Amino acid sequence: MSTGEAIPIVGGTGALGFGLALRLAAADRPVVIGSRDSDRAEEAAKRVREQVAGAEVEGAENDDAAKRGPIVFLAVPFRAQSENLTNLKSALTDGQILVDATVPLAAAVSGKATRLLGVPQGSAAEQAQEMVPDGVTVISALHTVSAAALGSLDTELDEDVLVTGNPKEAKRRVAELIALIPGLRPVNAGALETARLVEGLTPLLISVNIRNKSHAGIKLTGLPDELW
Amino acid sequence: MSTGEAIPIVGGTGALGFGLALRLAAADRPVVIGSRDSDRAEEAAKRVREQVAGAEVEGAENDDAAKRGPIVFLAVPFRAQSENLTNLKSALTDGQILVDATVPLAAAVSGKATRLLGVPQGSAAEQAQEMVPDGVTVISALHTVSAAALGSLDTELDEDVLVTGNPKEAKRRVAELIALIPGLRPVNAGALETARLVEGLTPLLISVNIRNKSHAGIKLTGLPDELW
Repeated sequence: MSTGEAIPIVGGTGALGFGLALRLAAADRPVVIGSRDSDRAEEAAKRVREQVAGAEVEGAENDDAAKRGPIVFLAVPFRAQSENLTNLKSALTDGQILVDATVPLAAAVSGKATRLLGVPQGSAAEQAQEMVPDGVTVISALHTVSAAALGSLDTELDEDVLVTGNPKEAKRRVAELIALIPGLRPVNAGALETARLVEGLTPLLISVNIRNKSHAGIKLTGLPDELW
Repeated sequence: MSTGEAIPIVGGTGALGFGLALRLAAADRPVVIGSRDSDRAEEAAKRVREQVAGAEVEGAENDDAAKRGPIVFLAVPFRAQSENLTNLKSALTDGQILVDATVPLAAAVSGKATRLLGVPQGSAAEQAQEMVPDGVTVISALHTVSAAALGSLDTELDEDVLVTGNPKEAKRRVAELIALIPGLRPVNAGALETARLVEGLTPLLISVNIRNKSHAGIKLTGLPDELW
């Protein structure tokens, strides 16, 4: 039986979004998987329900999904981020939090996945903050977790998620959701402008993975036990 | 009794350079601490010898120091990197490796230490590669290790050092030196251009440290046991 407010995931049929939906459903939270195509969203929701007994997961079009809970995850490739944010303008409302996981990999323009594009606003997260309606807060997170690992409940996670954003209270609320997933430790990494440094971790890990045939994650050493 | 070729450290009187000298001396390697001022270099060498019985450590002016071994560490603040490299032009020779640990923090221009400057060449490491004499290879490393932790032999280290650079053999030689320090694991993080992403880890860790009152380091999860 799921409890708590529903968690919408825009782009929930992609690898990262689906993995997130699966893990949050396994943590007994109701999830709404968003997609441009409601049939594909429902198909992904069905895949979650098949893996998680009693999961309360449904599919919807992205803008419908985004209205369903106070904290909305955005898990789309960089080349689709701007279009998605434009479509969400009429759906997101004052007081909502948008958790942006976008990484501006050069792969978005047919470049290498080991390279980061320069974004005029400084980062994909700051581009998101510029595009959301007034009163919507963007928090940036989840760039370093392998989508494949997240999407396989058999894989034990043991890594950190660096969370950036401006109001600490919004960051803390997002951290609470991330901490529902066993093996993920959310870490306050600073203001939203610091998202540009965190987004750079993804191409860096891809570069490490190419050299070491790995699926590396990040863990910070030397942090206190009590983080939030 | 120290063994192996001497390890020159340009800027070895600074916090990071001194910590490195101390740890390499403790690993029984001969070290030459470089400074603009040979008296200050000798004073730092004396401090190492006081802490490490039998240490073979001496002080010299930077350009003299740089001639003393095949792998030269450059541990200076970004605002002094270019001047140092200009001074080293007549000292470095074909076949040497320069290990650049420079981070272009905005603090170099009185900005915040949580912000990274844009460097025209892409990174401080690539600026170094542009400035060294032909035949000298720049390898980038050591951006995420706390200078304070390195400089205190009582502090147990347990973290990764991301190493970038172009010829893998040069990276491997630098990795061998780093691996002499107990608790540091060198990881091949890719080509020299990836240094721009690694250099961004320093302001990111500073941002984390401010929020969490910590001295964080980085560790990658999911890597194979055999790395080089």
